[in-house]
Amino acid sequence: MAKDLPVSPLAVSMPDLPAVGGVRFATAAAGIRYRGRDDVLLAAFDPGTTVAGVFTRNKCPGAPVSWCREILPGGVARGLVVNAGNANVFNGAAGAAAARLSAESAARVLGCPAEEVFLASTGVIGEPMPAERIVAVMDALAAGLTPDRWAESARAIMTTDTFPKAATRTARLGGVEVRISGIAKGSGMIAPDMATMLAFIVTDAALPAATLQALLGRGVGPSFNSITVDSDTSTSDTVLLFATGAAGNPPVTEARGLAAFRRALEEVLHDLALMVVRDGEGARKLIEVNVAGAVSARSARRVGLAIANSPLVKTAIAGEDANWGRIVMAVGKAGEPAERDRLAVAVGGVWMARAGRVVEGYDEAPVVAHMRGAEIRIDVDLGMGRGRARVWTCDLTHGYIDINGSYRS
Amino acid sequence: MAKDLPVSPLAVSMPDLPAVGGVRFATAAAGIRYRGRDDVLLAAFDPGTTVAGVFTRNKCPGAPVSWCREILPGGVARGLVVNAGNANVFNGAAGAAAARLSAESAARVLGCPAEEVFLASTGVIGEPMPAERIVAVMDALAAGLTPDRWAESARAIMTTDTFPKAATRTARLGGVEVRISGIAKGSGMIAPDMATMLAFIVTDAALPAATLQALLGRGVGPSFNSITVDSDTSTSDTVLLFATGAAGNPPVTEARGLAAFRRALEEVLHDLALMVVRDGEGARKLIEVNVAGAVSARSARRVGLAIANSPLVKTAIAGEDANWGRIVMAVGKAGEPAERDRLAVAVGGVWMARAGRVVEGYDEAPVVAHMRGAEIRIDVDLGMGRGRARVWTCDLTHGYIDINGSYRS
Repeated sequence: MAKDLPVSPLAVSMPDLPAVGGVRFATAAAGIRYRGRDDVLLAAFDPGTTVAGVFTRNKCPGAPVSWCREILPGGVARGLVVNAGNANVFNGAAGAAAARLSAESAARVLGCPAEEVFLASTGVIGEPMPAERIVAVMDALAAGLTPDRWAESARAIMTTDTFPKAATRTARLGGVEVRISGIAKGSGMIAPDMATMLAFIVTDAALPAATLQALLGRGVGPSFNSITVDSDTSTSDTVLLFATGAAGNPPVTEARGLAAFRRALEEVLHDLALMVVRDGEGARKLIEVNVAGAVSARSARRVGLAIANSPLVKTAIAGEDANWGRIVMAVGKAGEPAERDRLAVAVGGVWMARAGRVVEGYDEAPVVAHMRGAEIRIDVDLGMGRGRARVWTCDLTHGYIDINGSYRS
Repeated sequence: MAKDLPVSPLAVSMPDLPAVGGVRFATAAAGIRYRGRDDVLLAAFDPGTTVAGVFTRNKCPGAPVSWCREILPGGVARGLVVNAGNANVFNGAAGAAAARLSAESAARVLGCPAEEVFLASTGVIGEPMPAERIVAVMDALAAGLTPDRWAESARAIMTTDTFPKAATRTARLGGVEVRISGIAKGSGMIAPDMATMLAFIVTDAALPAATLQALLGRGVGPSFNSITVDSDTSTSDTVLLFATGAAGNPPVTEARGLAAFRRALEEVLHDLALMVVRDGEGARKLIEVNVAGAVSARSARRVGLAIANSPLVKTAIAGEDANWGRIVMAVGKAGEPAERDRLAVAVGGVWMARAGRVVEGYDEAPVVAHMRGAEIRIDVDLGMGRGRARVWTCDLTHGYIDINGSYRS
């Protein structure tokens, strides 16, 4: 279990998060795995809160993911319980029972049905989940619920994260100012031991669950579904969006009325997703890959992910080597429509290859300077069509091997 | 450019390779990139030699791959030219011209059409191919052709390889003993800079090109197409199989008569493929992944490759950690039919998880001892059907980062 990792050189500081009407938080030290720190978060939502969620596509999801999927169609949330240290994955029927026990315990103190309590767990997998430790701190959690606990909440859900992650925006909705705030954790796209990606966003807007789900489903595409650290997919990835309605905005039905809210939500999702990449295990460089000229957006995305997931591209960037040959290789291996002789590649905005061959005499100096920086930009133009995509990743360094390849104690 | 790497701890010594009737070899130092070593191989085949080939699926292949694909339908080979140090990839029309020049130069000394000369290049990509250096040594190569140059040939095609790779078998074909010998190079599934996978196999059997192609197409499935080092796909991967006919076996048409030959060929392909994994960049452990109980063989193979390509599984094994949780994650992310509660996982033959949960009280001692060894075996049973597959990979270590992430000089 990796501990006391140095803070990522790509870390950003946490913004001040004002209270959001309709939600209160409490954290506690349940001792599930960690000692000397809070490891459980309880969030309480006012009656009438709606909810939307997206979850891992991994075929072996954790018990909390199965629980959330089951209750999500209700569209109503009164509580959220998150723990760090044990993911409650691959625990069979005992795992499902532990999930239910946590939800029932929170439901008791919140005065709601268990089916209105959402769950997320992150940590080791295949170890029995000691839900009784969550139950044991539930009364203390309920007694401590306060609106201004965003920072503590962001810290309580961390595992191998080296910095807490939060973002906030405001927007006009139906003539009323509403706030959207969120926290996230994650430092690999996944490491089932420790580094699942979780995000919880709360707004005081009043919006029906179906509208929320449509906004979230669209919003995760260019944010959480466009980042990759190591191509692995957690068994527990969860993004939940809650709307308490405390802002009291009038009902908004037409898409045009939602535009500002949608933009603000997408900015929050984008900020949180990039923080996860910035905390990628061992990351020293944030890499943005822009693909243009693909036959479709879907094709562009696949090419972008092939580049972003290529160990050879990622190690080259760790070595500050603008190795466009490896980028060409990654484009070719994506299996998407591409033609060698139409392909162009730029690093740091300088086109190094065009029309199937190196650009003779291109100026290497700005490229070398760019590679020494902390934020690397790769542009690829396939020259085939109008499909575009943008994805983010980090470099692959000795730090990744240290964190993930260390002997288990 | 990585140099003077220590020999892989998984290296195997090269077998004695007797001459194979109908083929002669010569090597020379053309100075394409390396100094002080041979870097070009010429093989000359007797008239009547048939040929089969399989090539990279990368959409941006090198000029030599395009050349071979174009002439392969002829089914006839009189020559083979291989160079190390420059892959002749992404060089536009100049690359195609360089390939043709090499083929024509060999055709001149061998007295055959250029379209009977096969080519393979490995090394850096995007740098102009100095084919004139190959032309300059062609007369010397032709003068030096001898049948017993297998060992020198295996060495001349190395790039980041830390040991030369060769295998040989005999088989009965139509009542006659025939020999099958091959050499290979490759130390990442790919690194376009240096570590493309190439293999050349020669038999003295007399077999039509169509039969050879069928045998090779089937043979690469469980060998070269079942290994992965880093999930990347070279722009130059090439496997060529030549049959000189010097053994003088009578025509064999029925499948039953080919069985012994097919087995021997598959053993040669298997040996060579595993040597490439054993020389994986930074590899310290050879990993065999067996998948059973999948809905089909194709599905089993995808699950096996998801496990073998997972950075989290590979770093865990580098750390000698029998982390079955990461194996479960990799099964789930493959996207193939799988059910958490039917899944079983074994490491070193010891079943650690069954029916969706850890096997309580399993004996950890033999697993710990197994993880300390150089050859690791993972078994996964999905419990869904009868599909099986076996794939091989190596661990992901600091050595991989050193080799691929070092500053380019």
